[in-house]
Amino acid sequence: MILIDGAGLAEDILQEIRQEVDLMVSNGKKRPHLAAVLIGDNPASLSYVTNKVKSCETAGFKSTLIKRDGNFSENELAQLIEELNNDSEIDGYIVQLPLPRHIDADKILLLIDPKKDVDGFHPLNFGRMAQGLPAFLPATPSGILQMLERYKIETDGKHCVVIGRSNIVGNPMSILMARKGYPGNCTVTIVHSRTHNIDEIVRQADIVIAAIGIPKFVTSEMVKDGAVVIDVGINRIADTSTKSGFRLVGDVDFENVAPKCSFITPVPKGVGPMTVCALMINTLKASKSEIY
Amino acid sequence: MILIDGAGLAEDILQEIRQEVDLMVSNGKKRPHLAAVLIGDNPASLSYVTNKVKSCETAGFKSTLIKRDGNFSENELAQLIEELNNDSEIDGYIVQLPLPRHIDADKILLLIDPKKDVDGFHPLNFGRMAQGLPAFLPATPSGILQMLERYKIETDGKHCVVIGRSNIVGNPMSILMARKGYPGNCTVTIVHSRTHNIDEIVRQADIVIAAIGIPKFVTSEMVKDGAVVIDVGINRIADTSTKSGFRLVGDVDFENVAPKCSFITPVPKGVGPMTVCALMINTLKASKSEIY
Repeated sequence: MILIDGAGLAEDILQEIRQEVDLMVSNGKKRPHLAAVLIGDNPASLSYVTNKVKSCETAGFKSTLIKRDGNFSENELAQLIEELNNDSEIDGYIVQLPLPRHIDADKILLLIDPKKDVDGFHPLNFGRMAQGLPAFLPATPSGILQMLERYKIETDGKHCVVIGRSNIVGNPMSILMARKGYPGNCTVTIVHSRTHNIDEIVRQADIVIAAIGIPKFVTSEMVKDGAVVIDVGINRIADTSTKSGFRLVGDVDFENVAPKCSFITPVPKGVGPMTVCALMINTLKASKSEIY
Repeated sequence: MILIDGAGLAEDILQEIRQEVDLMVSNGKKRPHLAAVLIGDNPASLSYVTNKVKSCETAGFKSTLIKRDGNFSENELAQLIEELNNDSEIDGYIVQLPLPRHIDADKILLLIDPKKDVDGFHPLNFGRMAQGLPAFLPATPSGILQMLERYKIETDGKHCVVIGRSNIVGNPMSILMARKGYPGNCTVTIVHSRTHNIDEIVRQADIVIAAIGIPKFVTSEMVKDGAVVIDVGINRIADTSTKSGFRLVGDVDFENVAPKCSFITPVPKGVGPMTVCALMINTLKASKSEIY
């Protein structure tokens, strides 16, 4: 069993990006610049955004954190987005989700200029991705592709089962794993809350990608010997033995599943850091006008 | 076994549209107007476009066929598309595929105003469709959804296997069958040329959608008793007994598969007419500004 070191791999990639950025800057080019918009004070969101800002530093990017309180209105946010779209200093930006309930996230995401949409959430990027055209790939699926590639995991003709159908992970992941090329060319099954026989289907998988948001959902009985297991879940469960009173577990029962796997990602330090890393890759591409 | 009468159903829907259009016109509204661009003289393309024009008549739409010879350049086509985008008389238009080799179809399709993209091929429509936002759905998958709905075929929790991963059928079909809602909520597997064990996977399917472009690819051994089989294939095979010297067969070995099915579509007169019908539905939506 090989434990996929997402944190270490992300660090390596950030260093590679930093070298490229240093070279760009020494050649007189502008330093890539990512902005992040955070509305309200959800502690998980704050921690995600802080991570992203830290990764910008590691990658040699300029970053701007735009924090507004939870009462910031939809109109004000729309105006802020227009400013970011028109700010030639900023190569790409993200609006950290979830947004407060009084803001319609779908509506807001449509306002982001696809050229600066480094989260890959705008439907134009989503459609281009799905049609195999150059696009900003959604960060989590893109990070997983990087991981498969760097660990030279075979995907051609393999059966990949994606658990969960969110627009952020499961849905785009299933599209990317079925596309022509590497990583890809998989037979892909997407299962979700309406699937009757999840266990039976997951047992057929050469590659399992779990993104259903249920702690330890994937048990050892569900996994074939030698499978590759990618765990996207980040679930907080109560744990009185920790200072914070909780700990993070994935969607996979890691302890019991790991011994059966050829490759598996841990939680934390698996997919999470790769997601941030994919965001940095998109930002670099935006600054080099590689997609549009 | 119930034979799905695509031709009859399409006719019914066109009549429903006609009634709505007659009412719109008698209320002083503009008659929906579809334009079709045909480059070159591919006989199959000409026959498809002629069919679409005929369906416009049935639906009470105005139609304009714009025919250019095979030497029409990419630049000229780009200019024509700009004119169509700006022509407020035209609600929607299609550019009949395939285009001659000297024209980059991907590039051309990106020029179509998504608001008039009634084929649903533009990545913005594709992405909106994939994210569950209002969109012009690609015509063939949309026609198949109509068929499932009108025949009240259960899809919730069913295992749908889509054979083929084209951007026009297999890929969007797999996305739509997995989406929340009806028809949808399926467990979906997409198989294709790189899949090792297609037979074994198709045998698990409650619903088979064959769009691989290989005559009689789906045999009776591959189909579970009671399955729903939707045949998207339109393959010309030589047949000396016909006047034209060929006949049309689907991707399904109809004769041997049909007895095992709960529902099956014939070829011709199955999916084909429903595709044209879906195009009319999109054009009506465009004229009513229902999507954008």
